[in-house]
Amino acid sequence: MTVAGDYETVARERLQPAVYDYFAGGAGDRFTVNDNLQAWQRIRLRPRVLRDVGVVDTRTAMLGAPVAAPIGIAPTAAHQLVHADGECATAEGAAEAGMLYVVSTMATCTMEDIARTAPGAPRWFQLYVRGDLGHARELVRRAEESGYSALVVTVDVPTLDERDNGGPALEQRVELAHLPDGADVSDRHVALTFDDLATIVSWTRLPVLVKGLLRADDAATCVRTGVAGIVVSNHGGYQLDGTVDPPTALAEIASAVGDVAEIYVDGGIRRGIDIVKALALGAHGVLIGRPIIWGLAVAGANGVRAVLEELRADLELAMKLCGVPTLSDLSADLVVEP
Amino acid sequence: MTVAGDYETVARERLQPAVYDYFAGGAGDRFTVNDNLQAWQRIRLRPRVLRDVGVVDTRTAMLGAPVAAPIGIAPTAAHQLVHADGECATAEGAAEAGMLYVVSTMATCTMEDIARTAPGAPRWFQLYVRGDLGHARELVRRAEESGYSALVVTVDVPTLDERDNGGPALEQRVELAHLPDGADVSDRHVALTFDDLATIVSWTRLPVLVKGLLRADDAATCVRTGVAGIVVSNHGGYQLDGTVDPPTALAEIASAVGDVAEIYVDGGIRRGIDIVKALALGAHGVLIGRPIIWGLAVAGANGVRAVLEELRADLELAMKLCGVPTLSDLSADLVVEP
Amino acid sequence: MTVAGDYETVARERLQPAVYDYFAGGAGDRFTVNDNLQAWQRIRLRPRVLRDVGVVDTRTAMLGAPVAAPIGIAPTAAHQLVHADGECATAEGAAEAGMLYVVSTMATCTMEDIARTAPGAPRWFQLYVRGDLGHARELVRRAEESGYSALVVTVDVPTLDERDNGGPALEQRVELAHLPDGADVSDRHVALTFDDLATIVSWTRLPVLVKGLLRADDAATCVRTGVAGIVVSNHGGYQLDGTVDPPTALAEIASAVGDVAEIYVDGGIRRGIDIVKALALGAHGVLIGRPIIWGLAVAGANGVRAVLEELRADLELAMKLCGVPTLSDLSADLVVEP
Amino acid sequence: MTVAGDYETVARERLQPAVYDYFAGGAGDRFTVNDNLQAWQRIRLRPRVLRDVGVVDTRTAMLGAPVAAPIGIAPTAAHQLVHADGECATAEGAAEAGMLYVVSTMATCTMEDIARTAPGAPRWFQLYVRGDLGHARELVRRAEESGYSALVVTVDVPTLDERDNGGPALEQRVELAHLPDGADVSDRHVALTFDDLATIVSWTRLPVLVKGLLRADDAATCVRTGVAGIVVSNHGGYQLDGTVDPPTALAEIASAVGDVAEIYVDGGIRRGIDIVKALALGAHGVLIGRPIIWGLAVAGANGVRAVLEELRADLELAMKLCGVPTLSDLSADLVVEP
Repeated sequence: MTVAGDYETVARERLQPAVYDYFAGGAGDRFTVNDNLQAWQRIRLRPRVLRDVGVVDTRTAMLGAPVAAPIGIAPTAAHQLVHADGECATAEGAAEAGMLYVVSTMATCTMEDIARTAPGAPRWFQLYVRGDLGHARELVRRAEESGYSALVVTVDVPTLDERDNGGPALEQRVELAHLPDGADVSDRHVALTFDDLATIVSWTRLPVLVKGLLRADDAATCVRTGVAGIVVSNHGGYQLDGTVDPPTALAEIASAVGDVAEIYVDGGIRRGIDIVKALALGAHGVLIGRPIIWGLAVAGANGVRAVLEELRADLELAMKLCGVPTLSDLSADLVVEP
Repeated sequence: MTVAGDYETVARERLQPAVYDYFAGGAGDRFTVNDNLQAWQRIRLRPRVLRDVGVVDTRTAMLGAPVAAPIGIAPTAAHQLVHADGECATAEGAAEAGMLYVVSTMATCTMEDIARTAPGAPRWFQLYVRGDLGHARELVRRAEESGYSALVVTVDVPTLDERDNGGPALEQRVELAHLPDGADVSDRHVALTFDDLATIVSWTRLPVLVKGLLRADDAATCVRTGVAGIVVSNHGGYQLDGTVDPPTALAEIASAVGDVAEIYVDGGIRRGIDIVKALALGAHGVLIGRPIIWGLAVAGANGVRAVLEELRADLELAMKLCGVPTLSDLSADLVVEP
Repeated sequence: MTVAGDYETVARERLQPAVYDYFAGGAGDRFTVNDNLQAWQRIRLRPRVLRDVGVVDTRTAMLGAPVAAPIGIAPTAAHQLVHADGECATAEGAAEAGMLYVVSTMATCTMEDIARTAPGAPRWFQLYVRGDLGHARELVRRAEESGYSALVVTVDVPTLDERDNGGPALEQRVELAHLPDGADVSDRHVALTFDDLATIVSWTRLPVLVKGLLRADDAATCVRTGVAGIVVSNHGGYQLDGTVDPPTALAEIASAVGDVAEIYVDGGIRRGIDIVKALALGAHGVLIGRPIIWGLAVAGANGVRAVLEELRADLELAMKLCGVPTLSDLSADLVVEP
Repeated sequence: MTVAGDYETVARERLQPAVYDYFAGGAGDRFTVNDNLQAWQRIRLRPRVLRDVGVVDTRTAMLGAPVAAPIGIAPTAAHQLVHADGECATAEGAAEAGMLYVVSTMATCTMEDIARTAPGAPRWFQLYVRGDLGHARELVRRAEESGYSALVVTVDVPTLDERDNGGPALEQRVELAHLPDGADVSDRHVALTFDDLATIVSWTRLPVLVKGLLRADDAATCVRTGVAGIVVSNHGGYQLDGTVDPPTALAEIASAVGDVAEIYVDGGIRRGIDIVKALALGAHGVLIGRPIIWGLAVAGANGVRAVLEELRADLELAMKLCGVPTLSDLSADLVVEP
């Protein structure tokens, strides 16, 4: 049983089926949704023995923000669909656990309210461009002012799949906090280019990460454009079905730009051993999506905190069993790729 | 769910079991029928990001004939078994969608009636030699006169499997339009040779394609014999069970002769991502068989049009999500072969 | 459905469960029994097209004996367990089909009775040494005198698995024709050595084959010892569970000694395409075990004949569909090994 | 059916579910518990033929102790949970079979009682450090005095998984014989280092083995530290889920240090063919865990003896069928790794 397994079982019982499916589902035949889970299992561990693991330290910094473990909350939309306190509860749980929260543009609480809920906690803002770039620039300014320490530009949603109307219908039940005035969820989604990325980088003193990369060449171009971090991701299987799996893409991207950018990964990570594998393959940290939603649905801020803390404890146990007392000991020789 | 999945479900409910099986079935243990579907899923995509995909253009030409998308209707027999208007309805649907229809020698409407139904639409004629070469030459002459723009010579049916009598029995319920006078469906099927192919090429000013190749050496010989295009195909699993899968054969044949002939592929293609993979592996376009039959069975010309248009829209979505605005951007780096 | 599939279904209904299991079963976890079937399916075909396959000829000679197809009956024990006429019926069926019958030492009819049933038919004798070499030498003399044209020495049964008592119990219900006087089925089974093999070769003017090889080095030693043919075999999964599969071993052995010995293979061959694959990998012919038992159980000599003729027709069809008019056209480029 | 299969079936019926699960279970998703079984099946055998296997000898010595076969009992905890006579019954069964017993620190009989039960039998002592090194040194002294011929230091349990409380609860039902005075099962488990290992080696004239290695580099360090043997093991899947499988790790470690240390392996070994594969890959012997527990649960000392003797007989049969009369004939050419 994975850490989040029990939460998903309970959440599935409590949530309306459409809401559960909105978060659990994915694109196409859900090949990638399922493959993301299997991809981490295909990688085998070669644990070290007889190392001093009396003290194992999972603390690190993510682009400078100190965290209790290299585990962050991936940006996901519309938390009020599963809990009345929405993203504010998520932020509270993350702050209590001492881990990073990446707030989505599609949040149902404003970024300022979220910041006030947990001042000083490690927090990044995820940026979608909806409407026009001017609106996006205003979001970036607000993120800077309310204390977000990095900007995550998602680049793997050049279009919304308009045939799948379940999502927009649900999103209209709640109020999305960062859409342009008068806009609704079906408003034009802007497909970004490398030029747009350069423009966004020029707006801000915050470090910028790009989320949604699966190719080393694109990662290299992003780094040349001035980004400080990469989130290797196939969007949890929500966008393009049938992509290369996250660990495979991670290894390639980390080899290419891991020395000049911080590399993160999401998609299918459910266990401490998955995190060990990700870091051994070159990730600086991981992001967690669906498990956080299940924790939030079951027990609000406490559920979010519990999921994060259980994952951190599971990571610590996995590190002990792998003979690695510190995160910097997690190197490629610990894994066998399939 | 694939684009054609719903149509197959409904068609299966409406058609007599023997008719459904005639179109859905295949040779031997149906290993290849099933493997054709899985073969495309074994190939993974490496999407590009941050490309300008505001406008995605699926239009192209297939051996000179302009089409709305590189998606054609593969030749299949006896459409009156599933719809009273037979191939004329198929042609109408294809013309409305602006896509290519490859009319089979085994059609139940004459090629002239089909041509009159949708004058000016992109259309090729598929040639089987039944009886003698003289009769085939007459079919070629009629195809030229009624405006077919290319000839597709099917070469992977050197014999009919006489043990499987379901097919001929069904074909006798309808009237096949292009058999020799006095012939019936059980008449001798001619196994062609490279010499016969050269003869057929010599008869006509139309470009000739050869359909049913799975080997690069045979493709090279065909090109030397004067053919302008190759349809990589294992006949949808109807002929020899246990062949190499279409994408594997496609990659080899495209490497060998892709610069001197237009390469097409059929077998198991059901989604926009499958088409992206085929074109990335070197195909100029794809042909679709069974899904068209299900569309025709469910809603006649409208069903055929709908299947084609849904596939085209799915291709456009897949191209956007892969960061490729034009068909010529679809190159081999987008896929990982298993 | 394989050619023999229907016969097995009917045979299973008619035979006592213990008898069915005796022939259908295998050693250990029956991993090899099942894997033998799958091994041929793992190999893919690359058919040729546009070859002249108007006439396809399956006739050949097996160590000089002319046969209608390169398909022989593998030696199996105790045919009277499934049909009252036992091996005489098997011989009659094989003779009517014009194919080779390899008579087992463990037959329930004498080799002379079998020979009289079908004089002039292609026939080899399979030799087990039970008791002492003197008795074996007498069997060889009788085989020469009664017209067997080759000797097949089975070498992969160095011991009987005494824990599995089902076999001996069943074998005692019938009378084994070639055991030493006063012996019964539980008598000592002699494990042969290369020296014993040389001795056996020295006894006879007949060509000797060795059956039960899975290694190229052993095959080379056998050839140096004077054998004329090799039967690549894991004994149908009855002996050692978990061996390398027949097509893999075949390819290695054919590469090593295929130019100086005739190579045969058995294990899991059920279709014409399986035979095409075997010959493409270097086999001169194939042997069939269980399907013959099911044919014999269902319809005696007629069942044996039918199974052989259906397999021959299926081979002919597979050759046509692969574009190979003659057996000598079956070369390695026709297959893709997994 | 494996040798131990019947015993497990009966044991499962007789034991309390919690006790059965304690021994049958494993860490995480039990991926490794199941994979250990499959890993041996993925390796194929290439048997030799025509070798003189009239006499097959499974006798050998394990670090100098003569044994009837290279099959030992892996250290497992708390045998009184399944049989009132606990480890004394296990020792009696092992002695009757003439095979090695590795007594666990977590035994419920004292090592002296176990030694008195079967004086002179081949026996090693497995060492966990619980509490402090002084206590461990005392255990080593007692092991020397009571006639254990080697010390097995388990190094893959740097921590106990405290979230899984089933184990400790069960262990408290019985009395563990070798814990420090006043300690209970939840007392601190000491994570050892290479320095600790050197210290332990310095305490004793007995040869020391290290158990729980999966890496060649760690094995080389152990050898340099003075150990005489390595037990390649992933702890039967009880510790870290998702490790490299035993045969893969065995092959690497045997290549690295097989000429300077005796290499053993455990995990998933259930058949004679598994043992043949292990020895062909470089193991000097194998250890068996769960099957011994099932034998003990079903029939006490007789059950232990029976499991060992059946495995030895199965090994002898497998050696005959592989054409290997002696253990030293088991070389790498006998196996094909996946």
